[in-house]
Parts: sequence; structure tokens; C-alpha cells
Amino acid sequence: MSKLHTERCETCNADAPRISQEAAETLLLELDSWELFNLHSTPQLMKVYVFGNFMEALVFTNKVGALAEFEHHHPAILLEWGRVTVRWWTHKIKGLHRNDFIMAAKTDLLSAMKVSV
Amino acid sequence: MSKLHTERCETCNADAPRISQEAAETLLLELDSWELFNLHSTPQLMKVYVFGNFMEALVFTNKVGALAEFEHHHPAILLEWGRVTVRWWTHKIKGLHRNDFIMAAKTDLLSAMKVSV
Repeated sequence: MSKLHTERCETCNADAPRISQEAAETLLLELDSWELFNLHSTPQLMKVYVFGNFMEALVFTNKVGALAEFEHHHPAILLEWGRVTVRWWTHKIKGLHRNDFIMAAKTDLLSAMKVSV
Repeated sequence: MSKLHTERCETCNADAPRISQEAAETLLLELDSWELFNLHSTPQLMKVYVFGNFMEALVFTNKVGALAEFEHHHPAILLEWGRVTVRWWTHKIKGLHRNDFIMAAKTDLLSAMKVSV
């Protein structure tokens, strides 16, 4: 099993290197159902999580928000009825860093902690 | 001042009429900085709210989420660092109903209740 979720994000400056396409595709294999995705020419990691209602989706949004604050790394989270779409990328480098794969793995861990409301 | 925010959403079925373009443009004048917007051929109301950090944006997301549950009418909420984009439309009629303008006015009321975190 991947240990990505056990890592912490490293401080990332604007001159940090973007992860290569090859490395990104290799790391993607360690994640469950995340996709590489380009938005406005910025590569991102994206996943849709499905829930039974709006409140469960809101609870998950809050969990991801708490994780983001803790790691000082913030995603875009689209909250809809029964559905949350999470996108991770590193704003400072306008692309993907290993940190984003770590955050994706941690997000999956949060989704595994089911809360019914 | 518009009284839209004081109204409650009425129950809306799939055969409820969409609001006309003319009526939509008139109601839009009662709202502050909302835009009419088409996504996948579905007319929606959209507004971007700006905040000083991620947590303030998350707090606002929760307030809009609580309002949505209370009114049994749910928007799409895009949460990003310092920014929340809210889109209202009526799923059952794949378009805009007076309810959406009411919800937009109520959302503005929530944004006026400032919380600093």
C-alpha cells in the first residue's frame, strides 16, 4: 500500500521544480481514482467523491478544509448536492508538486472516515 | 431596498415554469452583483465572494450550506483560498425559478454577517 498519506508537505517556493509528467504518472498509480487534469494550462489532480446527501458532502468539505489549513496547502473544492470535486495543485509553481499527491492521498484517507448525517 | 431576502422558497416541481428572460433581468436588478450565466445550457445565477483567507471562505461556505438545507434548495459552491463562487439554479426545471433569486438575496445577507478567523 502506498505510504504517500504518511508524508508531510514540504515548504514550496516559486522556484521549486514542477514534477515531471513521467513522475506524475508514476505517483498517480499510488492513488485511488485521481485524474491528471489541465485547467487553464495548469496541471492539477482531480477526484469526485459521491455522498448520499448535501450534508455529508458539506461534512467532507469541512474535513478537507481542516486538512488544508493544517498543511498550509489549499485545494479548490466544488460542493454540490451529494458530490464534492477536489482539485489539488501548487499555486506558487502553477502546476503539480509531490505535495499535491500527498494531499490527494490524505484526502482519500478522510473520505474513508464515513460520517452519516 | 429589495424584499426578496424575506421570501421563502416555494415547493417547485419539474413542471414549474422557468422564469422568463425578461423577468430574470428585472429580478437581477434587485440583487447586488449577481450575474446571469449559462453552464451546459442551464441558466444560473452566479456571484464570487472574496475573503481574507481560506478559513473565512470555509465559514461562509458553511453558512450558505446551512441556508441551503433550511430551504431544501442547494447551490453549487466552489471554495478556494479567499474566494467562494456560488451558483444557484433549480435542478428540477434545469433553469431559473424565482426561488433562485430569493436564495441569492439570502446569500448576500449571509455575506454581510462578517466573521474574521
